[in-house]
Amino acid sequence: MTDTDISTQSINTIRFLAADAVQKANSGHPGLPMGVAPLAYVLWTRHMNYDPQDPLWPNRDRFVLSAGHGSMLLYAMLHLAGYDVSMDEIQRFRQWGSITPGHPEHGETPGVETTTGPLGQGFANGVGMALAAEHLAATFNREDFQILDHHVYAIVSDGDLMEGMASEAASLAGHLRLGRLIYLYDDNRISIDGSTELTFTENRAARFEAYGWHLAFVEDAHKLDEVDRAIATARSDPRPSLIVCRTHIGYGLPTKQDTAAAHGEPPGIEELNGAKEALGWPLEPMFHVPDEVREHFTESTRRGKEKHQEWLKLMDAYRSALPDAAEVWERTLAGTLPADLEEKIPRFEPDEKGLATRASSGKVLNALAKELPELIGGSADLTGSNKTDIKGEQPFTREHRSGRYIHFGVREHGMGGILNGIALYGGLIPYGGTFLVFSDYMRPTIRLAALMRQRVIYVFTHDSIGLGEDGPTHQPVEQLPSLRTIPNLTVIRPGDANETAYAWLAAVQRSTGPTALALTRQSVPTLDRETYAPADGLMRGAYVLADLGDKTPELILLASGSELGLIVEAGNQLAANGRNVRIVSFPSWELFEEQTQDYRAEVIPESVTARIAVEAATPFGWERWVGDRGLVLGINRFGASAPYEEIYQNLGLTVEKIVEEADRLLD
Amino acid sequence: MTDTDISTQSINTIRFLAADAVQKANSGHPGLPMGVAPLAYVLWTRHMNYDPQDPLWPNRDRFVLSAGHGSMLLYAMLHLAGYDVSMDEIQRFRQWGSITPGHPEHGETPGVETTTGPLGQGFANGVGMALAAEHLAATFNREDFQILDHHVYAIVSDGDLMEGMASEAASLAGHLRLGRLIYLYDDNRISIDGSTELTFTENRAARFEAYGWHLAFVEDAHKLDEVDRAIATARSDPRPSLIVCRTHIGYGLPTKQDTAAAHGEPPGIEELNGAKEALGWPLEPMFHVPDEVREHFTESTRRGKEKHQEWLKLMDAYRSALPDAAEVWERTLAGTLPADLEEKIPRFEPDEKGLATRASSGKVLNALAKELPELIGGSADLTGSNKTDIKGEQPFTREHRSGRYIHFGVREHGMGGILNGIALYGGLIPYGGTFLVFSDYMRPTIRLAALMRQRVIYVFTHDSIGLGEDGPTHQPVEQLPSLRTIPNLTVIRPGDANETAYAWLAAVQRSTGPTALALTRQSVPTLDRETYAPADGLMRGAYVLADLGDKTPELILLASGSELGLIVEAGNQLAANGRNVRIVSFPSWELFEEQTQDYRAEVIPESVTARIAVEAATPFGWERWVGDRGLVLGINRFGASAPYEEIYQNLGLTVEKIVEEADRLLD
Repeated sequence: MTDTDISTQSINTIRFLAADAVQKANSGHPGLPMGVAPLAYVLWTRHMNYDPQDPLWPNRDRFVLSAGHGSMLLYAMLHLAGYDVSMDEIQRFRQWGSITPGHPEHGETPGVETTTGPLGQGFANGVGMALAAEHLAATFNREDFQILDHHVYAIVSDGDLMEGMASEAASLAGHLRLGRLIYLYDDNRISIDGSTELTFTENRAARFEAYGWHLAFVEDAHKLDEVDRAIATARSDPRPSLIVCRTHIGYGLPTKQDTAAAHGEPPGIEELNGAKEALGWPLEPMFHVPDEVREHFTESTRRGKEKHQEWLKLMDAYRSALPDAAEVWERTLAGTLPADLEEKIPRFEPDEKGLATRASSGKVLNALAKELPELIGGSADLTGSNKTDIKGEQPFTREHRSGRYIHFGVREHGMGGILNGIALYGGLIPYGGTFLVFSDYMRPTIRLAALMRQRVIYVFTHDSIGLGEDGPTHQPVEQLPSLRTIPNLTVIRPGDANETAYAWLAAVQRSTGPTALALTRQSVPTLDRETYAPADGLMRGAYVLADLGDKTPELILLASGSELGLIVEAGNQLAANGRNVRIVSFPSWELFEEQTQDYRAEVIPESVTARIAVEAATPFGWERWVGDRGLVLGINRFGASAPYEEIYQNLGLTVEKIVEEADRLLD
Repeated sequence: MTDTDISTQSINTIRFLAADAVQKANSGHPGLPMGVAPLAYVLWTRHMNYDPQDPLWPNRDRFVLSAGHGSMLLYAMLHLAGYDVSMDEIQRFRQWGSITPGHPEHGETPGVETTTGPLGQGFANGVGMALAAEHLAATFNREDFQILDHHVYAIVSDGDLMEGMASEAASLAGHLRLGRLIYLYDDNRISIDGSTELTFTENRAARFEAYGWHLAFVEDAHKLDEVDRAIATARSDPRPSLIVCRTHIGYGLPTKQDTAAAHGEPPGIEELNGAKEALGWPLEPMFHVPDEVREHFTESTRRGKEKHQEWLKLMDAYRSALPDAAEVWERTLAGTLPADLEEKIPRFEPDEKGLATRASSGKVLNALAKELPELIGGSADLTGSNKTDIKGEQPFTREHRSGRYIHFGVREHGMGGILNGIALYGGLIPYGGTFLVFSDYMRPTIRLAALMRQRVIYVFTHDSIGLGEDGPTHQPVEQLPSLRTIPNLTVIRPGDANETAYAWLAAVQRSTGPTALALTRQSVPTLDRETYAPADGLMRGAYVLADLGDKTPELILLASGSELGLIVEAGNQLAANGRNVRIVSFPSWELFEEQTQDYRAEVIPESVTARIAVEAATPFGWERWVGDRGLVLGINRFGASAPYEEIYQNLGLTVEKIVEEADRLLD
């Protein structure tokens, strides 16, 4: 069989594995796999290095299918390449419990580098992976030990390029000259509503040139040598590359090719058979994989397997030559932490005036950064406000790849996608800062970090009306509760400096998902932990700070963050008036919910029904903790522009108000 | 006084009004106003048409300060131009109850066209305004009656151009050739973290050219004739224009000019006085406005006032010549609706199989579109899925401006900002569709619509795990509760076709804020309203659908949307077993909360503590309605990829499960 024949056979195998699976599931997206099969074929067989026996080999090339709806393309490639994605799983595409879900899901399927489907996300994830690769290469590679040296490939679609987050990530990638990025753009000129002429007529290539990318063009995806050369040229170009490949959605379908009808629904057996006939493919059996195609793929993966074996030897030598570096490499890659980390977080002395939790956060971050070289991050152009800088650390730039401070620019959504990519890459713990209110800009990426169970840390400062004069556009009120609704996201709003230290500890220790820290702009008192319970109570989400008065509590006051100071003061006033009051610090619902029912009942006994929760946010959801007889003092409106003490006063978040409501509740 | 002198005087007046106000408030952003004062001066005095006595004159030029942190620039302009923004208010900048809040807030201050501060938003709002202007001009203008013919100006910053949403909006504006847009780019080369060299080195001009914009350059903002010419050229260009103006942040400040330190904090009295000395400005009094500057501004506003008077005459003639068009114009501009709208919404016959609420939504939208020419909208490239098209209606394109269907492309965030701009423009009711899960992509714009009290309608389909095979990336679970946390947003999840009709009615009738409709992909039964209470109960948020059994209810079942069918069936089974069960349809928390306490207690009596809420979303917040003794059947995890019936089954949202839990609760 000639090279051309086997290539054509292979491409049609990919194409019809995908189309057959969609047809069988009676659900899915056949158009993309049928169109880009030639691109994936050239990329996977002639360029990418990977070892299906070790999908996590650190020096593998990464492949991101940013257009995640074409998931069957990826599953077909993984199957043919010999990953543990069986024909049975291909045939159970989109069924309950299969490893071939509707969109690629990281963690569910070996070889799936990231979860995609929401457009733009994979694009930005790839940028994060390339950034991580550069950083770790600069950190661990030595002249004779190029232990990291690979590329990040992606297939991106019109939809990806329309999404603003991809624009953000692309601009930053060009700025940082992330040359390891090679993106193949599936230029099929069709989106769901119809022709791209309907709404997407900008000059995409010129736009990416403006970002500082290398551009290449393939006029026909079936000209495999053109595709091959374009990738080769891209690999040698120091800039990130976008290869614009003219493709045809639903290639081969008699009436649906080049139409939106090929995008997101089963082709129908008639169209499917029409395509098979047109392309000389047997109608039966479905899911046909010729033996020679299997052999060809097995052959083509040999290159990667050999590279992997060489790499293992290189790592042995590395371990001998550079035992200290190797130790850090292995620890960070495993995602484990130094054992004594809790001893390394700062302790803060009691202080009535105290400091903003964003300020204590900055101190804690700096202490942790000394212990954890894997900590890398930055801010969306709010470094000084978020206190996210690491003192003495250089920024990550074109020239200085070992720097671990990232100037993300005013690009929150891109930042979130890049943080996910860094976390997915492995060996690093990424963090990113912005104002809490702008967590909305990056929300889709927070959701995906939670879904993918990635350790990403969000430093969300200016966490309430307490930011003052900037007013309602900058004052979060609904962001705290709305973040709490996201499954597998831990939200922590520490109440003073020492709680902030433990909040960071909880965040870096949490290896199964992201953590959002909500931090104040304004100062809050540092509590005296001789008088009040120790701050490590934060690790349990909520804890009894003190029982004030001689007897069993008749009232429980609960608060998070900056309102903790208010309930401490109110509690003391009430106690002075003869009340028996429990003060509960409640920085994290999620951590509290992970505790035993016994512990939770100990902190908030069912018998004490007089409960008041105080939080400078919409009170949404607090009923869970205060119960039918309880009360929530929150903010059921947007904020206001004024010095913050006046806003607190005018919106009724004051010690007097708490005392008054407590008295009313108890009488 | 020469022209140059009075210009310089005026510019310095703007500059120091802003800087003095920031200094007095001890909070704010002096850098932008000091830098762009010359741009604003030329724009407002030589080009813009407006009448400070009637800030809502429909044919005024719009001015958007997208870089909203420079709010004092806008307040200074409004004050000098003679809007009702007094010197007293200027001096109460950023104080409680002033009309000069930290960022410009639409509705708080005459002449403030939109609320800005969150970057990128104003940019996209302007695109929406320009689109609205084109559409209404095409609809209402006649050859002799150019009642709408004006421009939309904005000052945009580095931060705006970095935000992805602005990229989305810019791409669409170029595609649609919205030539009324003229944006002045404050190219000061400084962002908060420092020089734009840190992270923003893309070729911005080339990028905008790629979008199809006209580009112009002003090398020095102080060359007023250059600025003037660039604006004049832009006005005559059929494309949207970006005028790149080299400016200097904090112009005049001795040490802070051209540094990030000038951005967001008071200059300090020394720097401020240094600037005044350097620019020949008196140190005292602060807030100095020379008489000749006042006169000059009064003179410069004469052009706009005269145009306004001419326009009023034109409208009189219009009313005589075209009474029908004038009536529609006046009704829509006032934001009122035809009186008999309720009669025009479709009624759906009972049907066991029923239809998806996205499908009934499509029918209702089409019925309403016949009655409401002001209804304009589209989808973020999901027209067929969202059922947002208006049959027989042409899309809004370069050539066809009267079309009222907008192909937004895969640009959810840009769409949200454009919808806000359309609503702010007046005379139109905009709607936009995407999948509910992707409401996250446009969340900042939803918040701003709520904050600005704008009538925007979101058509969020595929509202749960009920979308099936596409899996967790596409299945909203936390979006419903998280949207409910936003103040002044009404969320409605109708339970059948007839509720969907009323949901749309509620949405178009709500003139004080946005409404989000959550709609199913899958079919839901159309209830028999002879057996069950009428669907207009939806307008009250929650209502008793039926009391099943002979006696006082011992159990209340509550549900929204697609789960309504489940509780109806479960309720009937329980009643057949001798239980007395109340079925409550609960499509909207916000509408229910607007009802009297009496009504609410009637629907959910305190005495019935056995309550079960069923909703295919995270159960967050439902405790408010089910109480301490109640139960929520929701989804405390991400979804899964499979046929939807299996997901419901596997995640325990079934009639059997409800019956089982009800029995347990009652026994």
